[in-house]
Amino acid sequence: MSNTEVEDTIKRLSANKYVQAVLIVNKEGQTIKSTLDESLSKKYSDLITKLVEQTIHVIREMDDEENKTNDLSFLRVRTKKHEILVAPDTDYLLIVIQDPEKS
Amino acid sequence: MSNTEVEDTIKRLSANKYVQAVLIVNKEGQTIKSTLDESLSKKYSDLITKLVEQTIHVIREMDDEENKTNDLSFLRVRTKKHEILVAPDTDYLLIVIQDPEKS
Repeated sequence: MSNTEVEDTIKRLSANKYVQAVLIVNKEGQTIKSTLDESLSKKYSDLITKLVEQTIHVIREMDDEENKTNDLSFLRVRTKKHEILVAPDTDYLLIVIQDPEKS
Repeated sequence: MSNTEVEDTIKRLSANKYVQAVLIVNKEGQTIKSTLDESLSKKYSDLITKLVEQTIHVIREMDDEENKTNDLSFLRVRTKKHEILVAPDTDYLLIVIQDPEKS
């Protein structure tokens, strides 16, 4: 994604009234863009990056093919307080935190 | 859930043509019911139980309230090959593996 595309994506998502936060995190777990403050952005980026790594590990372990080609397309964690959506891109994770009533 | 309810749930879910497997796993990670063979059931139960624990850990860490009351309602892992749905109950995890094209 180009920088403008990233900005546009964040703007479009944030306009949704159910969306509480949008973060873009690189493969090293660093926050590239975020609608949250610095401390929360770091905390969420760290935790969600780690969760995605663990999820991908499980997917690979479950894969019965020798070359383990299976990969994560989308992760959705619904909690009592919010729903966390993670869309992995080649270089980034797009993370959206939204109201759980939405879906 | 009573035993009959468990059986009925599995029967109903398995009847869906997109559903590839249904497992019910207790809080210790042991398979209670499964439509898969023993070896795969054990593997999937172990891996998904661990993933759910890690997910709950992340949810609790993200919770800014002191008593950390937030909890997992539903987990959805879409992969290139299948989609894993996990609904946690008080004593069990209900796990459904389905065709990713379904949703």
